[in-house]
Amino acid sequence: MNDRALRDLVIGLGGTAGGVPRESRFDITAASEVMAVFCLASSLPDLRERLARIVVGRTREDELVTAGKLGAADAMTALLKDAIHPNLVQTLEGGPAIVHGGPFANIAHGCSSILGTRTALHLADDVITEAGFGFDLGAEKFLDIKCRAAGLWPHAAVVVATLRALKMHGGAPVAQAGGPDEKALAAGLPQLDKHLETARAFGLTPVVAINVFGNDPEAELALVEKHLADQGVRCGRSTAFAHGGEGALELAKIVAGVVDAAPENPEPRFLYPLDAPYRDKLRAIARTVYGADDVILAPAAQQAIDRIVKGGHAHLPVCVAKTHLSLSDDPKLLGRPTGFTVTVREVRLSAGAGFVVALTGEILTMPGLPKEPAALRVRIGDDGKVRGLMQNE
Amino acid sequence: MNDRALRDLVIGLGGTAGGVPRESRFDITAASEVMAVFCLASSLPDLRERLARIVVGRTREDELVTAGKLGAADAMTALLKDAIHPNLVQTLEGGPAIVHGGPFANIAHGCSSILGTRTALHLADDVITEAGFGFDLGAEKFLDIKCRAAGLWPHAAVVVATLRALKMHGGAPVAQAGGPDEKALAAGLPQLDKHLETARAFGLTPVVAINVFGNDPEAELALVEKHLADQGVRCGRSTAFAHGGEGALELAKIVAGVVDAAPENPEPRFLYPLDAPYRDKLRAIARTVYGADDVILAPAAQQAIDRIVKGGHAHLPVCVAKTHLSLSDDPKLLGRPTGFTVTVREVRLSAGAGFVVALTGEILTMPGLPKEPAALRVRIGDDGKVRGLMQNE
Amino acid sequence: MNDRALRDLVIGLGGTAGGVPRESRFDITAASEVMAVFCLASSLPDLRERLARIVVGRTREDELVTAGKLGAADAMTALLKDAIHPNLVQTLEGGPAIVHGGPFANIAHGCSSILGTRTALHLADDVITEAGFGFDLGAEKFLDIKCRAAGLWPHAAVVVATLRALKMHGGAPVAQAGGPDEKALAAGLPQLDKHLETARAFGLTPVVAINVFGNDPEAELALVEKHLADQGVRCGRSTAFAHGGEGALELAKIVAGVVDAAPENPEPRFLYPLDAPYRDKLRAIARTVYGADDVILAPAAQQAIDRIVKGGHAHLPVCVAKTHLSLSDDPKLLGRPTGFTVTVREVRLSAGAGFVVALTGEILTMPGLPKEPAALRVRIGDDGKVRGLMQNE
Amino acid sequence: MNDRALRDLVIGLGGTAGGVPRESRFDITAASEVMAVFCLASSLPDLRERLARIVVGRTREDELVTAGKLGAADAMTALLKDAIHPNLVQTLEGGPAIVHGGPFANIAHGCSSILGTRTALHLADDVITEAGFGFDLGAEKFLDIKCRAAGLWPHAAVVVATLRALKMHGGAPVAQAGGPDEKALAAGLPQLDKHLETARAFGLTPVVAINVFGNDPEAELALVEKHLADQGVRCGRSTAFAHGGEGALELAKIVAGVVDAAPENPEPRFLYPLDAPYRDKLRAIARTVYGADDVILAPAAQQAIDRIVKGGHAHLPVCVAKTHLSLSDDPKLLGRPTGFTVTVREVRLSAGAGFVVALTGEILTMPGLPKEPAALRVRIGDDGKVRGLMQNE
Repeated sequence: MNDRALRDLVIGLGGTAGGVPRESRFDITAASEVMAVFCLASSLPDLRERLARIVVGRTREDELVTAGKLGAADAMTALLKDAIHPNLVQTLEGGPAIVHGGPFANIAHGCSSILGTRTALHLADDVITEAGFGFDLGAEKFLDIKCRAAGLWPHAAVVVATLRALKMHGGAPVAQAGGPDEKALAAGLPQLDKHLETARAFGLTPVVAINVFGNDPEAELALVEKHLADQGVRCGRSTAFAHGGEGALELAKIVAGVVDAAPENPEPRFLYPLDAPYRDKLRAIARTVYGADDVILAPAAQQAIDRIVKGGHAHLPVCVAKTHLSLSDDPKLLGRPTGFTVTVREVRLSAGAGFVVALTGEILTMPGLPKEPAALRVRIGDDGKVRGLMQNE
Repeated sequence: MNDRALRDLVIGLGGTAGGVPRESRFDITAASEVMAVFCLASSLPDLRERLARIVVGRTREDELVTAGKLGAADAMTALLKDAIHPNLVQTLEGGPAIVHGGPFANIAHGCSSILGTRTALHLADDVITEAGFGFDLGAEKFLDIKCRAAGLWPHAAVVVATLRALKMHGGAPVAQAGGPDEKALAAGLPQLDKHLETARAFGLTPVVAINVFGNDPEAELALVEKHLADQGVRCGRSTAFAHGGEGALELAKIVAGVVDAAPENPEPRFLYPLDAPYRDKLRAIARTVYGADDVILAPAAQQAIDRIVKGGHAHLPVCVAKTHLSLSDDPKLLGRPTGFTVTVREVRLSAGAGFVVALTGEILTMPGLPKEPAALRVRIGDDGKVRGLMQNE
Repeated sequence: MNDRALRDLVIGLGGTAGGVPRESRFDITAASEVMAVFCLASSLPDLRERLARIVVGRTREDELVTAGKLGAADAMTALLKDAIHPNLVQTLEGGPAIVHGGPFANIAHGCSSILGTRTALHLADDVITEAGFGFDLGAEKFLDIKCRAAGLWPHAAVVVATLRALKMHGGAPVAQAGGPDEKALAAGLPQLDKHLETARAFGLTPVVAINVFGNDPEAELALVEKHLADQGVRCGRSTAFAHGGEGALELAKIVAGVVDAAPENPEPRFLYPLDAPYRDKLRAIARTVYGADDVILAPAAQQAIDRIVKGGHAHLPVCVAKTHLSLSDDPKLLGRPTGFTVTVREVRLSAGAGFVVALTGEILTMPGLPKEPAALRVRIGDDGKVRGLMQNE
Repeated sequence: MNDRALRDLVIGLGGTAGGVPRESRFDITAASEVMAVFCLASSLPDLRERLARIVVGRTREDELVTAGKLGAADAMTALLKDAIHPNLVQTLEGGPAIVHGGPFANIAHGCSSILGTRTALHLADDVITEAGFGFDLGAEKFLDIKCRAAGLWPHAAVVVATLRALKMHGGAPVAQAGGPDEKALAAGLPQLDKHLETARAFGLTPVVAINVFGNDPEAELALVEKHLADQGVRCGRSTAFAHGGEGALELAKIVAGVVDAAPENPEPRFLYPLDAPYRDKLRAIARTVYGADDVILAPAAQQAIDRIVKGGHAHLPVCVAKTHLSLSDDPKLLGRPTGFTVTVREVRLSAGAGFVVALTGEILTMPGLPKEPAALRVRIGDDGKVRGLMQNE
């Protein structure tokens, strides 16, 4: 259960029998280091080693205390030994899919498990995997973190676009972004362009998937297609949500073409080398992917980096926690903002996951419930039928 | 995970975005009111109603705030809708058993679910159910709470005894209680007598099951049998742990005899009526079951009772949280102590479960880990084999 | 400033720069151990030694950490070196009075400083000193704690009585206790008798001072006088509040007579020897002074005593913190209650003061403000004149 | 007592009787808003009004809760009604001095009371007042805050310099900065130049007082004098610490000359107008006084400013809390740093004092004790003589 009251707490109260008083926090499962460890582990022994490396505190002499030093690594691994086997599920049409691991891409690294991906690669000719949110979040982390850890690199990248999101980034109010508004659409296209530009910075040839809604005006769809064609970017319409696999056939053919044209063993092109200073890694991401002028490290963030480096973890990739509502760290900056800086207010070591988490803006690793929590809409009948889980039910 | 640091905490810190600062606690699952609700629910609608009645706070005007008033009852029920179906498992010999619900009998009401018991009663001629720890804990709550809620009453009661436990209650040090010590055994028998006396106070004819260990001296076993025979109490040896079902046949026949001799619809005989004052209910349990002189209510406990009564919950049964190491609330008072009082330091309302929890002595609803946690012994191999879960592995 | 929010707090938060997180509390100055140390010190070196003995914590090995071990004793003494000199002030009529030290008698030991009393004894033939609240609070502590520490013993004891308080203890509602009510007065007299009985238990001959209010009915005053005369207790009316020194002359003569008749070096008669177990010391006070049946030690209180004894402080007197509204620990038990027990919920070591504090009932060492704090009535004019400090101003 | 454990705490615990749980902090007296109110009040009625304006919280509707709304203003004023009268003390030579009010200039506004200064102006021809630390702290606040509030403006400004401090700012290690080092001295002079430049930015003609130590090399003193003469800045040596008033005569004559040459009613020249946005006020100070490139407002600081403006306090001066060890907010940047930014991490409203506090870098309003607190050196003899208060005693 995510509860904002668990973001910041003092535990160990009630006298010595209650343990040592200390400040603590809960993270939502999707932001937990154990989730990241689980997704990035390449085998059971690697899982155990990663769990052992998780840092849970520091001694008075400032030495790292790890789960391994506490003797907890084997017990933790035992708890996860079955969970680490990839889950094979099927779509409504019977197509196979592996659903395994769930870190969110705004507050964590946003990719399904390496073991899941590898299993799929053993079983299929082509594997499609999702990286959450935009190219600035899931994709950047997929490439710089997961692919680097797994020794893999994709043959193609598909960027999903909807008229509604583009119009929202073009200035249309959220409630009206679903309606026709060619002007807002045109104004929103640079946001898509930025994602494509980022894909190219990684050496990838992006394909745009236009996720078509039933009432999308043909003129607006054509406008997007023309805009992309003018830049030489391939795109395809997908009506998979409405029509299932059939609806994605056109897109699939285009993507297959790109994949076939790609070199068999594509060369990874990371945004930053692992031995660069953390400030430079953050700058590389912020400037190349977000379009920022620079990164500002709050004093606490800089101190955390210094301690991390001093503790022997200088060469990890960076997992940026950032709002998914903007390319910047300010959820109100829509479209393709420029002339902004990104503020890193806190940096945390995830030694087990093998990265450093940089928290920007006001992003939190324990979401709060909205004013009207979804639970209020859930209804269960005496027959056990549950209603209200989906928005329009 | 049970962690003593979660016994007493302050949550909701970090400014207004972190919610309202407040003192809180975590309970171990086995002591959670949701567990009790789940075990005492008679149907899915009853489960929802009980969940809705759980009190989570009070308004400034001192009115009860329930999960139902927060709109959470349906969502909570939806989470439990599958779990409420009893689990059918089998013994190593293939015998059917329903394992369903896990409240501990020292810190909670200690009985498996009503739905599980009812399901078994539909399926079998005879149903045996366990109530945790001694007659002072599991059995008292089974009768006063679960049977009262379910409208059931047993035809017989089996009290399990071991030479080792009796010798320990007779003064033998724990480490040596497994060895021969006739004197300690004789000194410990009054503890067993007290449990039998309590069974009779509920109108039940107790049968003693002597849980035989391989090296139990025959003379000592005979001593217990004679002691019981002198009082007219039937008993049977069980070697089920070593020999499986065969080892329990003798005992089973004796119990079957008692059941057959019992009236078909036995009349429940509770220790207290529900409309007695809480102090009297506590006294009835403490005097009849524990052998105490009286119950002392700490000021905070008395205040809690006053508020509970004022809030409209005057007529609930009482679930006493008490150490299982003694008939009293002091774990060091072994055997059959007399001349002691029981101190109730805290009283909590479990309106959903339908009882009031009285915490005695120093019993806690969130256990701490021992100096050497069991996790330290757990080992997992690269093949995924887990060792160290059992004590002697 | 007394503020209930400072009763129970967690300090040292905000990361390592903010110190070590821990639970703490503030006491009101009048309940502080430094106040008690200051009042019981016999000289500047004794003050320093007492401050050095103040226990501020325990090591992990359970050894006492004192102010002296922290190196703070000299600095603390330096802060108090001028304050320790007794203050000579004067009454409105120019009579000399030493006002020095202010521990409250309900939450602390309730007596002015030993140095003040000794100074007065050097300067005057007769010294009158006040011990706060009733004989059950200030007087018991004056005799068992202050006199024992100072090696002094009084020649006489004056118990102050008002018709209003007696009527209140006889059942009259507070608001009406100022009016005539002979029946309530008669019903309240046993409360006075208990105080006199206690005085005699210390070997003292009590004199009753009837503190006369302007509208006290003559018949009621006579009733009290007759009641006392019947027991052979001397009493005198005092109108000192209205008429100054003149109004206390009659009483003074009676007291002087008692003093002159007393032995020159009266033998102290304490309620308990210092080497008795703490439970017995508490029992002696509760039975003899409060009229209780017994004392109940909450588990936490017993544990604290065990630790205090183990830490080498077995032979200190006891300072009971108890409501001043009743002879018992329950503020609602008026008159001369019987058949009650006193519950000690917490015991604290004041090694510097040289006593052990036993907190009974719900008494707190940090009072809260009432619903309408006195500060709301204070008014200051542009001329700097302050009004509203007294109740009827 | 300043104690780092009181920087960040949770109060109001222990159940409803302990008040409402909340996060809080203690400030050292010198940083308290009451100290600032006291120093800036122009009269007793103004003191009461300022105390009434102190903001202590916000309602759920985000309205300011003030001490006045709580009804506390009169009682608070009553407590300070005598303290507000300036204290006349004397130097060792019998010279009169008014010592009144003690806010530190790094964490507060750093000036003695307006009432003290006004009293002095009534009594003397010339009044010299001190503003704590360098021109970047005390002087800036003296001019922008105190002079603005009091309607006063100085006729001259004296900047005190020592060879030791200049050498330290020129790169000499602290421990050796007292010894001869002409090179470090020359390297440190730009730091002094910056202070003089700032004085001129306020329209003042600065005089430098060289605070001479016994072993200061003549050649180094001459070097400073020449450096100043080259810029047309007057300076004078002072040996007042060693020789008393005589030692300051030369300097006094120079300053008197500057004062006599100044216009009788000098025109104030503030760094910023009160109606400028807070960001601009902060920029004006940081660029003109500290030599910074820009000011960075942490998100929390910007939010605080927005709330302050929304709450109706848009036009207050700014009191910057900043380390006194550097012109920048980084204590390690010595000399005259350039190319740096100043980070404001927190902004607080002091509506009673009439300014907004901007906390920069890691400056705190509750200092911690050093590893070896000064208290450890304090010694008191049995005669009451205190030693160890001064460093070399």
